[in-house]
Amino acid sequence: MKLATLKDGSRDGRLMLVNRQLTAMTEAGAAATMQQLIENWDELAPQLEARNSALNNSEWAGAEAFDPARLMAPLPRAYQFVDASSFLNHGKIMEQAYNLSVKKTPGIPILVQRQGDDFVNAVDDYAFPTEADQCDFEGEIAVILDDVPAGVTLENAESHIKLFTLINDVSMRGHLFRELQMGFGLINAKPATTFAPVACTLDELGDSFANGRVNLDMVVHRNHQWFGNPNGREMDFSFAELISHWAYNRNLGAGTVLGTGTFSNAGYREVGSACLAERRAVEVIDTGESTTPFIQYGDSLQFEMFASDRSSLFGKIDQTFVAGNGTGPRTKPVAANSRNGEVC
Amino acid sequence: MKLATLKDGSRDGRLMLVNRQLTAMTEAGAAATMQQLIENWDELAPQLEARNSALNNSEWAGAEAFDPARLMAPLPRAYQFVDASSFLNHGKIMEQAYNLSVKKTPGIPILVQRQGDDFVNAVDDYAFPTEADQCDFEGEIAVILDDVPAGVTLENAESHIKLFTLINDVSMRGHLFRELQMGFGLINAKPATTFAPVACTLDELGDSFANGRVNLDMVVHRNHQWFGNPNGREMDFSFAELISHWAYNRNLGAGTVLGTGTFSNAGYREVGSACLAERRAVEVIDTGESTTPFIQYGDSLQFEMFASDRSSLFGKIDQTFVAGNGTGPRTKPVAANSRNGEVC
Repeated sequence: MKLATLKDGSRDGRLMLVNRQLTAMTEAGAAATMQQLIENWDELAPQLEARNSALNNSEWAGAEAFDPARLMAPLPRAYQFVDASSFLNHGKIMEQAYNLSVKKTPGIPILVQRQGDDFVNAVDDYAFPTEADQCDFEGEIAVILDDVPAGVTLENAESHIKLFTLINDVSMRGHLFRELQMGFGLINAKPATTFAPVACTLDELGDSFANGRVNLDMVVHRNHQWFGNPNGREMDFSFAELISHWAYNRNLGAGTVLGTGTFSNAGYREVGSACLAERRAVEVIDTGESTTPFIQYGDSLQFEMFASDRSSLFGKIDQTFVAGNGTGPRTKPVAANSRNGEVC
Repeated sequence: MKLATLKDGSRDGRLMLVNRQLTAMTEAGAAATMQQLIENWDELAPQLEARNSALNNSEWAGAEAFDPARLMAPLPRAYQFVDASSFLNHGKIMEQAYNLSVKKTPGIPILVQRQGDDFVNAVDDYAFPTEADQCDFEGEIAVILDDVPAGVTLENAESHIKLFTLINDVSMRGHLFRELQMGFGLINAKPATTFAPVACTLDELGDSFANGRVNLDMVVHRNHQWFGNPNGREMDFSFAELISHWAYNRNLGAGTVLGTGTFSNAGYREVGSACLAERRAVEVIDTGESTTPFIQYGDSLQFEMFASDRSSLFGKIDQTFVAGNGTGPRTKPVAANSRNGEVC
């Protein structure tokens, strides 16, 4: 089952069913919003199946054309959002390039608490205040959870994953190192997050979900030119391992979002990267300096993931970055530092 | 105006009006939930005034007895929660006691992204998995914001504060140092947050809100014995300064919660502290070792703040800490470290 949320002027939008080919969509009916569906999954999800089946068989009279521009993020806002950094290869490259050392504890994943509002849809322009903030992207898979009780076991954690989607975890590298050094996490370094137009259930992934990981390529283009296609199978922690560590002493409410962290593979010289910072780090390792620029106003980014049958799983993030965001003058940005900024 | 949320079996509860003396409450009527009120403040808040006036004049027939046990957190869940560390005196004591250095940038506040769900009411038991996690409290004021546009100016930031309340930012010191060292913020160190039963509008604070700060004592008792009463006037950053830095490049959605960080005063030897870690640090400075224990199962904590007329502004947090929380076995807790744990 594939789901999306229609812009209807409200903060939570209207839940839509989308067909597998991403050509048609219609109101879900049984659930008004994604949050309502997640909170009542066992009761409501089965009620969507008849209409979903008709939509996929082109037998649903109420179907309209699938249009990402009319959609919000699949879950427009969430009561909790944590982003992991579960591909350790990415950190290794960053630490090698900049002689850094992140004090990790073996077996314990890096999880970053994030804001659950200000989620951006897949094709609207993304505005940010100044190129000096060193705007970067991170291609990730995100899962949406139902209620996870504190202390959930490793064995039970995966069953709480209800939906999968794709995100661009937009990062402002010019603020990252200063905030990391303080130790209290990321604020100015992590503004709004962009979501693919569609979220899908586990069965849509088929055999591609194995070993607690999405074994598919994250296909990333910058200005429609190939940038990388690292694969999800190299996650150093499974979703279950991330969830069980996170929920050790807290409940995770229905609608909680978990990101994998930027995709990164050991074979990065062949498959490329899913963020600029990693490519810039490789350039530093190879030549001593970075030549790939951070996001400039007018740049566009494309992210997509394809099922084994080559169909697009979540639709495409295709977004242009522009000047602006917010009203009137901002607090003075901290001076960016092109090298120190590029941690993680 | 004083507001609370009644437990009604739903996730968001039912919005209640509470009289100034905290003796009577009744359904708000015009708004069903706190989130709905905050999202439509300018339209709905005026509609509550007639009933609020009648309630305060004992002329409202529908009034029932105020009962904290029947209430949830005033806002039971939020799309964004950030906790500041705006009393620098607290950090100075911690750094002196443990020879630590937090790499702060002058003029830039410490803000910690936190989870907006799993908010706990004022009098329900608080369960945590093991005393080895070094359970601590932090007495803070929290404000609830309406929609704050990215780039909000310092001048406009304060106008987005709609409500004030009191929180115990429960902290697990045994996980704190490990998580701070990684740099990515706090997860196991910061489980569920406890809220006072009542939130109130600015006018209830009267002259006590000045210079962008709540100039009142945070009265803290442990097991009904005085622990401290530091004053809010010593915040090193005003609420407006915290909000404008935070919203530099992101929108804050209606219902966003901002905590001040644990109250801490330069005159801590007279007024005491609002958390155990700070008292333990003073003991280390004075004698080389801490003697005040972290929260033990069975301990209770009381937090309250009084208006200039000595009335209780938010009602009292009076909570007992117990073993448990969650279902079944947990992931193995990281070994606690009684000294390294006590940063911030």
